[in-house]
Amino acid sequence: MAILKPQPLTKAAFAPFGDVIETADRDYFLINNDSTQRYHKLASVQLSAVSDQAIISIFRARSHAMPLMLKMMERHPMGSQAFIPLNANEFLIVVAPAGEPPNPDQLQAFITDGSQGINYHTGVWHHPILSLIDNDEFLVVDRQGEGDNCDEHFFTADTEIILDPTDVLAY
Amino acid sequence: MAILKPQPLTKAAFAPFGDVIETADRDYFLINNDSTQRYHKLASVQLSAVSDQAIISIFRARSHAMPLMLKMMERHPMGSQAFIPLNANEFLIVVAPAGEPPNPDQLQAFITDGSQGINYHTGVWHHPILSLIDNDEFLVVDRQGEGDNCDEHFFTADTEIILDPTDVLAY
Repeated sequence: MAILKPQPLTKAAFAPFGDVIETADRDYFLINNDSTQRYHKLASVQLSAVSDQAIISIFRARSHAMPLMLKMMERHPMGSQAFIPLNANEFLIVVAPAGEPPNPDQLQAFITDGSQGINYHTGVWHHPILSLIDNDEFLVVDRQGEGDNCDEHFFTADTEIILDPTDVLAY
Repeated sequence: MAILKPQPLTKAAFAPFGDVIETADRDYFLINNDSTQRYHKLASVQLSAVSDQAIISIFRARSHAMPLMLKMMERHPMGSQAFIPLNANEFLIVVAPAGEPPNPDQLQAFITDGSQGINYHTGVWHHPILSLIDNDEFLVVDRQGEGDNCDEHFFTADTEIILDPTDVLAY
């Protein structure tokens, strides 16, 4: 049995998997007659075909009881997918490198600080949204286009991977 | 002198200018083993060239004292631009139809309900972000690519258009 404990989400730690969408310690430039700070291009939408489109959706997600037994991971082989919290709540992230379906020992877990969003790069394995608050809402920016853009990988029945955020949750 | 009073933002009233990004009264479908409601494609990112990219940024905006004398409008002729509030605050919107630089009598003003974001369609004239809370933050999804994607139109010096949200603000 493997216990997966989330680490605080940082740009450096998450770089192999995607982007962290946040303002802390980031550069900006001034626009609109110097009244607005633009934290420019914190993430880019990745597409696959000329006919693909970037679209904007909202997800409302039930919370998962923790600790949680992880049963599967998914990836989007044709585009990136960004999640930005709309209610300033922390959420959990479980990722594994793009490529072959992940072995359990390749999984890494993160916890956001409430202000952070993330952008999974094309093909990065990730667990579906892991909300800690019931009916929490996220802005989602991802790809629409032809073809099957979701692969799922289910762990074998004897695989026990427990996501345990007890140490990092304040409640 | 013209007084411009904001009306509540609705999908129908804003349709000539762009999309309202919200969940109220919208359809969704269930994903992630029925644990998540996906309010799908509330907006699409509009681009102009194959080499264009949709990018994700954060704007932190100073508030404007109200009532406000409006001096200019801008448009992005090569792509859409979406603003989604990250702190659940109301904000103001002033728009005019795409096309020739607007006459003052073409301007319309809206106020959001705190949960709503918007996506200006390509070429729609709009005022730069009108935050009501100092240093309010917005997720922005817009276009990056070659060419000049911002036109500004300044009203003549004798034009007096006053944006007055007094009636619709609770504070």
